[in-house]
Amino acid sequence: MSELRVIGVGGIPEIKAGDDLGSIIVGVCKKQGLELRPKDILVVKSKIVSKAEGRVVRVDGVVPSALAKNVSRLLKKDPRVVEIVLSESKRIVRMVRGLCLAETRHGFVCANAGVDQSNFPDGYAGLLPLDPDVSARRIRQVIGKKLGIDVAVIITDTFGRPWREGQSDVALGVSGIKSTRDYRGLKDSYGYELRVTEIAVADEIASAADLVMEKIRGIPVAVVRGYSYQKAGGSARDLIRPPSRDLFR
Amino acid sequence: MSELRVIGVGGIPEIKAGDDLGSIIVGVCKKQGLELRPKDILVVKSKIVSKAEGRVVRVDGVVPSALAKNVSRLLKKDPRVVEIVLSESKRIVRMVRGLCLAETRHGFVCANAGVDQSNFPDGYAGLLPLDPDVSARRIRQVIGKKLGIDVAVIITDTFGRPWREGQSDVALGVSGIKSTRDYRGLKDSYGYELRVTEIAVADEIASAADLVMEKIRGIPVAVVRGYSYQKAGGSARDLIRPPSRDLFR
Repeated sequence: MSELRVIGVGGIPEIKAGDDLGSIIVGVCKKQGLELRPKDILVVKSKIVSKAEGRVVRVDGVVPSALAKNVSRLLKKDPRVVEIVLSESKRIVRMVRGLCLAETRHGFVCANAGVDQSNFPDGYAGLLPLDPDVSARRIRQVIGKKLGIDVAVIITDTFGRPWREGQSDVALGVSGIKSTRDYRGLKDSYGYELRVTEIAVADEIASAADLVMEKIRGIPVAVVRGYSYQKAGGSARDLIRPPSRDLFR
Repeated sequence: MSELRVIGVGGIPEIKAGDDLGSIIVGVCKKQGLELRPKDILVVKSKIVSKAEGRVVRVDGVVPSALAKNVSRLLKKDPRVVEIVLSESKRIVRMVRGLCLAETRHGFVCANAGVDQSNFPDGYAGLLPLDPDVSARRIRQVIGKKLGIDVAVIITDTFGRPWREGQSDVALGVSGIKSTRDYRGLKDSYGYELRVTEIAVADEIASAADLVMEKIRGIPVAVVRGYSYQKAGGSARDLIRPPSRDLFR
């Protein structure tokens, strides 16, 4: 019987710029009697990564551009916050009805280019980590050093999507696990080549982890245990569809 | 510590039209020593639901329309299979590069309107269940009668999505669980109203379950245990964004 467990890690303290997230997570797990094991997948919300990496901007200190001022009413946002959103954008995908859907410099398509004011101190906005793959790798390396085990790490955030209501968690950064599982060329039990070619397992793991990460109670870390994944250096870039192959950009 | 388990249920026999899926699942679980419990969430792949409900078409017996013939080369598909796809479509969203992205009569936007030849016998194509909410409710009722417990049931399928590579599982039918978790108006630990308003928990559960459902080994059922969900009649329709509010249709 194939079985996996998803364990929420609460009790993470308020994270400040410069904090070593890997060490903090190791400490909190130990305190809770949760022993990390080889092949565990550690799932970490990007928000605390942004805080640890100082990816936080004081709204007060921002001077809005002409465009930011122009669209601030359409977006129903402070022009300075709009300016932060535009600064994080590589391309605007849609700008309507209070929504700015943008492609970030990483290539993620999401609301407000990932800029978020919730769960950050008043007057501040949080930005996505500069390179979430690197953030994931750093946490993985610290855990490797501290505990002598190899875990996989996935950095996640909550994104909306077309056609379907509600949001779900996806993988922004990945280390130690292949982001997708490839079924290309494999045949079903009738000998027919499978329609599904590639499963976005890192996104599915992100979603599974989100189920134990309560937004209010503040559980920004989870451990997924028992999933037999393909080891790899890993990169969440494998989950970004190139604009040339995308029909909705 | 909040924790959930995702348990794959293997050993489901080949499903035929008219089979009582609820009874079969109860039998297989019992045989495997997996005792279903109140508040378990049973996740079932739509493919076996389609088979049980006779939603299978013999390709041989289909006469392609003019449009089906016209686009069969563009889509690189048998014109008769294209005809089945068109018959299942309420609206064509994109028709390019071997891909027909369509809105089904239920309102799902997916490749080939959910018509699938993999994992169906040679010469046959499978259609999505007519009303997956009803399918979910039926399975839930059988389990209620047989075991005297209330479980939630989610019918799932594997869909692609814009902007991101790879596919992931989503909920097509739901019974006994609220499909979304609403955070509207709630405040974070800083008193700021949350940006995330509604989490598509039924989709996240579908994705979590897919991780233990191997496409090749044939595990079309999983049990998600330990997730504290909001009980409700439930409907996967809550996850369908109305076309009027959708920017990509």
